[in-house]
Formats: sequence, C-alpha cells, structure tokens
Amino acid sequence: MPDKLAELRRELSIANHILANEDVVDAFGHISVRHPEDSDRYLISRHRAAELVEPSDILELTLDSVPVRKTDQRLYSELVIHGEVYKARPDVYSVCHHHSPSIMPFCITGTSLIPVMPLGATMGPNVPVWDSRDEFGDTELLITKPAEGRSMAKALGDCWMVLLARHGATVAAHSLHECVFRSIYICRNADLQMRAMAMGKLGPLSKGEIEKCAAHSLTPRTISRAWEYWARRLEKADYATGGHSPKSRPEHARPEPAKFISSHGETGGNKR
Amino acid sequence: MPDKLAELRRELSIANHILANEDVVDAFGHISVRHPEDSDRYLISRHRAAELVEPSDILELTLDSVPVRKTDQRLYSELVIHGEVYKARPDVYSVCHHHSPSIMPFCITGTSLIPVMPLGATMGPNVPVWDSRDEFGDTELLITKPAEGRSMAKALGDCWMVLLARHGATVAAHSLHECVFRSIYICRNADLQMRAMAMGKLGPLSKGEIEKCAAHSLTPRTISRAWEYWARRLEKADYATGGHSPKSRPEHARPEPAKFISSHGETGGNKR
Amino acid sequence: MPDKLAELRRELSIANHILANEDVVDAFGHISVRHPEDSDRYLISRHRAAELVEPSDILELTLDSVPVRKTDQRLYSELVIHGEVYKARPDVYSVCHHHSPSIMPFCITGTSLIPVMPLGATMGPNVPVWDSRDEFGDTELLITKPAEGRSMAKALGDCWMVLLARHGATVAAHSLHECVFRSIYICRNADLQMRAMAMGKLGPLSKGEIEKCAAHSLTPRTISRAWEYWARRLEKADYATGGHSPKSRPEHARPEPAKFISSHGETGGNKR
Amino acid sequence: MPDKLAELRRELSIANHILANEDVVDAFGHISVRHPEDSDRYLISRHRAAELVEPSDILELTLDSVPVRKTDQRLYSELVIHGEVYKARPDVYSVCHHHSPSIMPFCITGTSLIPVMPLGATMGPNVPVWDSRDEFGDTELLITKPAEGRSMAKALGDCWMVLLARHGATVAAHSLHECVFRSIYICRNADLQMRAMAMGKLGPLSKGEIEKCAAHSLTPRTISRAWEYWARRLEKADYATGGHSPKSRPEHARPEPAKFISSHGETGGNKR
Repeated sequence: MPDKLAELRRELSIANHILANEDVVDAFGHISVRHPEDSDRYLISRHRAAELVEPSDILELTLDSVPVRKTDQRLYSELVIHGEVYKARPDVYSVCHHHSPSIMPFCITGTSLIPVMPLGATMGPNVPVWDSRDEFGDTELLITKPAEGRSMAKALGDCWMVLLARHGATVAAHSLHECVFRSIYICRNADLQMRAMAMGKLGPLSKGEIEKCAAHSLTPRTISRAWEYWARRLEKADYATGGHSPKSRPEHARPEPAKFISSHGETGGNKR
Repeated sequence: MPDKLAELRRELSIANHILANEDVVDAFGHISVRHPEDSDRYLISRHRAAELVEPSDILELTLDSVPVRKTDQRLYSELVIHGEVYKARPDVYSVCHHHSPSIMPFCITGTSLIPVMPLGATMGPNVPVWDSRDEFGDTELLITKPAEGRSMAKALGDCWMVLLARHGATVAAHSLHECVFRSIYICRNADLQMRAMAMGKLGPLSKGEIEKCAAHSLTPRTISRAWEYWARRLEKADYATGGHSPKSRPEHARPEPAKFISSHGETGGNKR
Repeated sequence: MPDKLAELRRELSIANHILANEDVVDAFGHISVRHPEDSDRYLISRHRAAELVEPSDILELTLDSVPVRKTDQRLYSELVIHGEVYKARPDVYSVCHHHSPSIMPFCITGTSLIPVMPLGATMGPNVPVWDSRDEFGDTELLITKPAEGRSMAKALGDCWMVLLARHGATVAAHSLHECVFRSIYICRNADLQMRAMAMGKLGPLSKGEIEKCAAHSLTPRTISRAWEYWARRLEKADYATGGHSPKSRPEHARPEPAKFISSHGETGGNKR
Repeated sequence: MPDKLAELRRELSIANHILANEDVVDAFGHISVRHPEDSDRYLISRHRAAELVEPSDILELTLDSVPVRKTDQRLYSELVIHGEVYKARPDVYSVCHHHSPSIMPFCITGTSLIPVMPLGATMGPNVPVWDSRDEFGDTELLITKPAEGRSMAKALGDCWMVLLARHGATVAAHSLHECVFRSIYICRNADLQMRAMAMGKLGPLSKGEIEKCAAHSLTPRTISRAWEYWARRLEKADYATGGHSPKSRPEHARPEPAKFISSHGETGGNKR
C-alpha cells in the first residue's frame, strides 16, 4: 500500500502541473483524488498553487475535510467542495475546482455551456448552474462552509460539472486521469462555443451524439493518448526547473492502474 | 529503397511535430503520406499524439487501412479517412485530418470558409461540408467505417479540403510538404476570416485571384521557405527534449525529393 | 537599514519582471514602492523596460520626483504619476502605471470596468476615468508635469485604480506585493469582462460581494500564494538568461516583511 | 566602411529576428535598409524567412532591385516594394513589408486603421489603402513588377504606412530601428482597435494628440528602450539555438549610430 499511495501522490502532483500548463488553473484552483483503499478519505495538496505542488505537499483528509494526520500546513479554504461531492457521489473518484478563463464568461453571463464538438460531450447532456446568492446571500464567493458545499453538490446532482455563478466550476470524474481529461476538454469546448457564438448560429451535438461521443472519449485508450501528450508538453515547459518535471517516460502512456480508475473499465475495441 | 523509406518516415514524423507545434493538431489528429513506390499503400503513425510520433512509430498500410505487416500496435480509429481518399483520388499523395480550433467554429456554425488572403487560396475556390448525420444518423462523430470514409471522400470530390460538421476537417495534397503547408495556412486564413467577420464586411479574393494565388503559393520554392521556418520554430520548442527534435539542418530548406512530390513539379521562376 | 533597502530593491526588480512576464507591462510601464523608513521618498527604476530592471537600476526619489542622489541616469518621463499619488495618499505604499492590452479597450471606448469575478473585486467598487484633454487639451498623452500628476491623483481620489483615457491606467496599493496582485488580477478581470460582454448580459458582483471578495483576496496568505506562482513562472521564462532570474527560493512564498506592507496586516484565518 | 556595413548587416538580421519574434512576420514578410553611404542602394536578405536571416544572407541591391554583385541566391519576389519606395521617398531609410494577423482584418474589410493609443500615433494621421485590382486586375496579389511597386509607392505618398487590400502592409521609416518600432506598435494599435470596436464606440486620438504622440514616440530615447526590450525577449526565445541569437549586450540599448538614422536626430529632453 505505501508504494501505491506514493505513486498516487506523484500522479496527483503531475495532474496539478498539467492543469496549470494547460491553463485550466493558475495560482488558484485545485484537484483531488479519492483514497483508492479507503473511500472515506481523499488526497489533495496543501494550500499552494497547482504549478508548484510536489508529492510531499499532498495530504490525506476525511470526507469532512479534516486532515487525517495533524498538520500545521495551511489548507485550501474551499476543501468542502471536494469532501461534499465525495459524500454525495460514491461513483466519483476525482474532483477539480477551477476558474479557467474559458468557462468564466459562461459563469458571468449565465450562458448555457453545451457540447459543440466530440470531446466536449464529456461534460454530459446538462451542466447545471449554482448561485451562492440564492441560498447564502452576499458572500466572498468561496465555498468554505459544509452547508455551501452540500448545496453545490446537490446542484451538481448526477451530472459531471456544475458552473458556479461569478466564480468558476466544479468537475467530477470516475478517476484522476478522467478528471483532468474532462476539465481540459470542456475548457476547449467552451472556447470553441464562444468563438462559434460570435460567428453564427450554433449547430450543437444531438442527444444521441453526446452520449456516443462521451462514451468513446472516456475510454482509457483515448485518455492515455492525451495524457502522454500533456506530459510531453509539461516536460518541455518545465525544462528550466529540472528536477520536478515528469520525464517523458513510457509509463505516462500507460492507462492508470486499475485501482485508481474505479469501476470505469476499459472497453476493448475503442479507438480514436 | 529502404533508405528512401527511412527518410520519408523521418519527414513524416517531423510533419507531425510541425502540425502540433503550429496548433493544427493536439492530442488528436493525424497526417499520412502515400507510399512513394507503391501507390496502393500509405504510411501513418500508430495510435499516438502527433507531438510524440517517432519514425519507428510509422506503419505501412494498404488502402483498405490494413497493416501490411502484422502488428500488435494500436491504430488510429479513423484510418479510413486516409485510405478512402487515396482510393478516390490518385493525384493525392498526403492527407491530414485535424480539429484545429481555427476551423472548428466553421464546423459548428456551418459558416463557409473562403480565401481572404493569398496563402488561404490554397484551400481552392470551394470547401464542401460533410455531415455524418445526413447518411449515418447519430454516431460518435468518428469516421471509422469504410462506408463513412467513402461518403466523406465523395463529398471532398476534386477539392482540397472538406469540413466535417461538428467534428473537424480533412485536407488533401500532392505531397507531404504541400499538405502541411495547406493545413497550416488554411487555419491562418480561418483565423483571419473570423476576426474580419467580427469587424465588418468581407472583401474576399476574386475567382481569378484565388487561382493565381494558389498556383504561386504551392511551388516548392514557397513551400520550402515555410518548411525551413517551421523546422526552426520546432527546434526552439523542442530544445528541452533534445534527441528527438529535428536540428536546423540545411536539408530542411531543400525542396522535397522529386519522388515524394508526385506530379506537382517545380515551376522555375516563381518567387514570393 | 542598508540590508533592508537592498532586499527591497531586489523585490522591486522581481516585481518588474513579474509584471512583464504576466503581460501587464511591455517596453513601457513602471512600478514604484514608497521608502519603508522615510515616507517622503520612493524607489523606482531608471528609464528602462521593466523586463530588464536590475536592483542596481533602482533610484531613490523625493515625492517631487527628484533623485535624492545626483545621477546622470535617464529617468522615466512620467515620474510625477508616482510622486503625486504618494503625496495625495499617505496610505499608498506602491504605485503601478501600465498600458496593458487588457485594459486599453476600456480606455479607448470609455466602457466602465467592473468586477465580474472574485479577484477582480480588488479594483474596488468604482474605477474612475481621467481624461487629460479636459484640463490640458491636446498633449502627448503623457503625465509629465506636476499639475497633470496632481489632477490625475485627484481623479483617483480614495479609489485603487484610475483609467486614463486613450492612455492606460494607474494602480495603487498598500504594499508592493498587493500592487502586483491588484494590477495582474484587474487585467484578468478586464479580459473576462470583455469576453463576457461579447457573449451576453453581464451578471456582475453585488456591492456586498465586492467588499467581501476584496477583503479576502488582499490577505498576505492569498497574495503570497500567487507570488510564489508568478516567481516560478518567471524562473521558467528566464531560464535562458540565467543570472538575473529569481530562483524558486522558499522566501518567495513568504509574506512580505511587515515593514513593507504598511498598515495592512494579516488577518489570521483567511483562506482561499 | 566595411566594418560599418558588417555592423549594419548584423543589425538588419536582428531586426528580422525581432519582427519574427514579435509576430509581425512569419515565414513571409521582409525588411530592408538603405545603404548608409550610397543612397542608390539598399540591403535586404536573400529569399528566406526572417526568423532565419543571418548577416551573411544580406545582399546589396540597386534601387531597381538588381543585385550589385552577381549572385545565384534566390531573391524575394516582391523586392520592388522596397526599391520603388526608396526611389519615391528620399527621406525613407528603411522599409518593412508584412502580413501580420493584426492588420490583415483591416485589409480584408477595408476598415480604416486609426491611432487609438499614443504609440499607435506613429502610423501618422492617415493610412491610405492600395488595391492591386484597381489598376492591375486579378493578380497573384504580389507586387513583383516595377509598375506595381510604383503604383503602391504613389499610394503611400508622404505617409508612413499603406494597407494593401487582401494582402498586407508596407511600412516606411527614417531608420531601421524606427521601422521596427513603427511596424510593431502599429500592429499593437491594430489589435487594440479591433478589441475596442467589438466593445463600443472608439474614442480615438485627436489630430493634435497624434502629432505630439508621434513626435515623442519616435525619439531615439524611446526607441532604444523598446529595442533593448525586444532584444532581451529574443535572447530568451532563441536560447535553444545558441550561436545565432543576439546576446543581451549593452550596445543593444544604445541609439543607432548617427549614420544609420538619417536626418532624424535625437531631440534632447524627450522622455517616456
């Protein structure tokens, strides 16, 4: 077990770096993964920009977002986003919270985010919106109280993403790699939707296409191809800082160990 | 022959890297080249992001998209795009399939892509649109079946590019270098068309200008100037990863060996 | 004292590099800091692009923008922007003047800049506009005369930013780090406001949300997390030039020494 | 004299690299400088992307665009752009021809380019438009014949920039550094004008402001500050390719030798 956890910590730190390198997060935003052996715990970095997260920064927390081992490290203020989603959704093994410039215009204008290309279908047929003002009035637009986290998780329902009015988004997934994949490609879809809206009338995916495209996109085969690509980009971007960058090792191309991808198994013949 | 094929494999891997570095492809999208000695075969990478393709990843396939030599490598799912275009168009020696953010807004809104600057004329006077829904209903928006590939190739007709509704594009060319050139500059044209549409009424190229601009742009002289430029940019971007980057060698500036550019010969006095 | 000033000069040169690396300034634009021991002086670089400012370039000036020690170095022409704001606002310890492409469209069209996301609330509830033409007629659009500086400082009033019609912006803050933080995140807010305006009707922050978000965002805890992130990005970008880049040292993550942050103390339990 | 010419060749190759690095030119576009000792000649690179131009690539041509010394190097096809402007404008010492994405939307829609910020005033109060179609009908949209060059130079008149419909732009200046400065900052102005037009009604510079801003911007003091900045950026971008990048040497910050800046002398007290 310790070796597996060490590997997961390393994977989670790489996931942090990829999200930073692909412009999903900047100084703010975070990603977590459920503990592979104890579903009542999750792993997340201490209070730190994703770009800088090292395996040694990663802490273990209960679903009430309390550190399992006493620590004097500072914690993210919005931990309940993660804890409350894990409580409400046993099928979820990874959660990302971000304020990407790709999705913020949707959060600011209330425009519906919809799949306009195959990989965007990973958002699912419906992306609900949650507005802190409805239930909690004027706040600092952070989800710091358990009640706020629960309310947001309720809005998420059985979807894979919820937009937070004036604030950002929360993305859920069956696995860490899937969570990174979904987060990045929904941002790409949002960018394209924005450009397309400025150009003319949208011709979005049909309900049937969304379902088929999502199923295809979320196979380990497809996800690992993208992961290998992001890892290479990261390696190039991180060259200057040497030691902490993931080398372009063959293992980056491997699908995640079965332990970490929960029930979402590989479906043999899928190709992209 | 083996030396020539080795050289072509190397060129094809560089073409992959250039397309990635110039934002035509990301984790997805691929480019192929017809076998220079056997027009019933083509070469393409195994299932892998273009950014990472090495000469040793490149496989030889029949026009039915079956590997010539048995392999346990994973293959791209949309190989029929390449095979069916090569079948339908004996004049085509290279095919690129991509989902560049530059052209996606056109695929999403159904806006016509038209030449608005000289190098954009390489798209030809007409870019048809193919919608998988018309003939095949709700799919995963991938062109994986021979019938789908044939249908798309038929829509391409004798043009050089076909837009795929909600999906991407397929580009054809007389040679590998021409295919890269056309793919990149049509993306640049698409970006400019989008910006110009937001600013005012388009004043596009006339029919006569399109013809003259395309003829000039597609001479080896012009293409090799651009190729040398992309290779230098690649060299800078790939510095971190050392071994696999194409060095800025003089040979990058040379036109392609005659074998690889098919019937499209150099026309002496052209200049840009 | 000499050691403290040397450290402040180093911090100010890093602040210059961060603003350049984050696209707030280019060849033009500058940032200053009030002298921590003598509130009638301030520190700023000699006439030089922010990207290149070294600790040894930094001069000490009186609030009349006269160098404390005779120098034959060239000075920025718009020094009075800094001197006059320090005179009018004893609570201000750092001033930044820039022409970022993010805010220029607001300066050109007269569109009101408003907080549309939490970190944008650092601009405060109101960003006034100053037009040199009103009082001074046709000028070279530079604020070079004390009367112009005073007029601009008067327009700033007790706000944290003033837009300069057709010209740029001036940002004020309690500390150097806060000034960098505010400058950068207002630019990000401006970008998002622009995108959102192109997409639909803005749903901006309420008055109460602005107040709460600004208070939270400007705590040392939040600012130092962003500073550590920018310093890492800088380190990567500056790799080529070796000696002058700030290494990713732990001290970058530390809050500013109390001396440099004036009255704006840390409020214990804040988290982001 | 040989040493001075060698130095000018080196400066011209750096100017080429800067224009490429700042996105004014890509594989296409070129810049020339009039011979400092013989006003009937000019210097320009052989047929090559600006990014790759070395001092040894630079040739000497008569104003009829014929190489002074016989050469078997390929030449740019649009040399007459340079030669004909030098003939028509004895005050011009440097010419740049480019197709930057910043200005192309103006060339495509016929929208007037106007100064919306101080440095944009370097375009002058009026930027005429030349359309090859008016006089020459359908062409390959290249200016290759002396008559075409003369017609374009006539349209330029006594202005500093002329837009070429569907094609690009030609920029003129008193010196090489001024030409780079004007080319880059007009592109920045074009970007801002485009963004501002999408946001609201333009509030552009007045006639008096244009005159004063242009005069101030084009002093050696201001230009050399920007040049030092671009040289540093180039140094960082070119790190990978080592030998050919201009090191961040102090001389980059010096104003151009008087010989190369023609009649446009430094006006003592200007500051920015």
